[in-house]
Amino acid sequence: MLVGGKHFFENDDPYLIAKKALRVNLSDLASMGAEPLGYLLGLALPDKNFDPDQWLSPFVEGLKDDQDKYHFNLWGGDTVSTTGPITVSVTAIGQAGNTVNLTRSGANTGDDIYVSGTLGDAAAGLLVLKEKMDPIKFEYLIKRYHLPEPRIELGKALSGIATSMMDISDGLLGDISHICRHSKVGAEIKVKKIPVSIALGNLLATKADYSSLIWSGGDDYELLFTTSPDKDQVIKELSEQLAIKLTKIGKITKGKKAMILDDEGAEIKYGKRGFSHF
Amino acid sequence: MLVGGKHFFENDDPYLIAKKALRVNLSDLASMGAEPLGYLLGLALPDKNFDPDQWLSPFVEGLKDDQDKYHFNLWGGDTVSTTGPITVSVTAIGQAGNTVNLTRSGANTGDDIYVSGTLGDAAAGLLVLKEKMDPIKFEYLIKRYHLPEPRIELGKALSGIATSMMDISDGLLGDISHICRHSKVGAEIKVKKIPVSIALGNLLATKADYSSLIWSGGDDYELLFTTSPDKDQVIKELSEQLAIKLTKIGKITKGKKAMILDDEGAEIKYGKRGFSHF
Repeated sequence: MLVGGKHFFENDDPYLIAKKALRVNLSDLASMGAEPLGYLLGLALPDKNFDPDQWLSPFVEGLKDDQDKYHFNLWGGDTVSTTGPITVSVTAIGQAGNTVNLTRSGANTGDDIYVSGTLGDAAAGLLVLKEKMDPIKFEYLIKRYHLPEPRIELGKALSGIATSMMDISDGLLGDISHICRHSKVGAEIKVKKIPVSIALGNLLATKADYSSLIWSGGDDYELLFTTSPDKDQVIKELSEQLAIKLTKIGKITKGKKAMILDDEGAEIKYGKRGFSHF
Repeated sequence: MLVGGKHFFENDDPYLIAKKALRVNLSDLASMGAEPLGYLLGLALPDKNFDPDQWLSPFVEGLKDDQDKYHFNLWGGDTVSTTGPITVSVTAIGQAGNTVNLTRSGANTGDDIYVSGTLGDAAAGLLVLKEKMDPIKFEYLIKRYHLPEPRIELGKALSGIATSMMDISDGLLGDISHICRHSKVGAEIKVKKIPVSIALGNLLATKADYSSLIWSGGDDYELLFTTSPDKDQVIKELSEQLAIKLTKIGKITKGKKAMILDDEGAEIKYGKRGFSHF
């Protein structure tokens, strides 16, 4: 459920809102290794000071483009009016095959921890927008915020390989903690191993106090997964085959706690800036 | 999608809001002859002047009671905060068997038109609340407004018998017009045949200008369906077997228009009071 003023700016391009609404749901399907089939759309539109036609036309265009891109069909839904902000509710339906292990509860002590892509970009993009930094210079980060890339092919391919998986929507540390809790294990992640984009690296070069975005920034919708240590080569091949960066960032431990470790192996305490979607 | 201030009063008992949210969706399944399986729940709760615990406790109780009653399971969902009113989005999933004809497009010229139960009660119940009439005297109507009875067993039983079907959510005239448009036929309904409850009859005895609620009042969630004329006996038996009143109210015609006819066979023009859910 995406709410205006909470999950997007009310004056955001409806074309982008539509795409993001589909993509965060497609990412949920990806994290279960599922093939997207169709979705149901609930739309609550403001009853005042709002031009539905002007808003809906680009919104529908955004839905259509991503329906085509992801072979995803609109099956039905509901449109209502509200005294509140624009509210978009998407229910995505997919079909999972061999996903017996693709939950949060299958991680084992000694497993490797991987993430796809780079982390912190989306949260940094949101900061760029909120703090009105140069939108041209940080265009890549803004795009990562508006248009997450659901890792559908990767999700499907990891079915039967990963021992646990989820998509990163709340931030790496929060999300690996979910896996630890459900799997009754701990985790140690080396901060230096966490993949960071060039664009975010450039931003952090001038704003070092934002570095916690790398592990606490949400909205990246990358896949976070664990594998048994003998899967190194398989993961490497998968990464090449799908042309998606897959980075080993840490280990599942016997403990009960997920920790981010600095270069000296000391735990980094949770950054001053906790992540909120907005 | 149910929005506070639009589809329910914001101070309505959350227990009833929960049940209604499930039931209007169960009614959608019923209208397709489907067996309810599970649902996904999106909940947007106000970020100010709102006590989530106080509200959620009876809401969850309502969900639970109707989950048990209808053997319906909560599969997942999302809870977010909003600057707007309480918004409840339910996506209901069911399994349809032999429902090749259970759409809006299968009605044929000469078919009989049936409805289940009685019509106009829910809209009258809403009026009773809005106009602060005696809530004890009209308790039945208020209950019909708060707690529609999804006709699940009837819907399943009509699979293979009805030529078209839908549930009445917008009002009889509007909904039969949907069937006519999709089936490319007309309809003639005799106002005298439309089943009216004793409670609504009592209300209309003093407030005759509300009589259009019978065909224009929504929110009844009764089933509206058509059958070939040789199904008289089958429908009669079904009615007895399920203990649900099923009333033949008119005929599908060659025309293109759905009409409500008075005792002289003249078309009743759409009442002054069009129905809105609120």
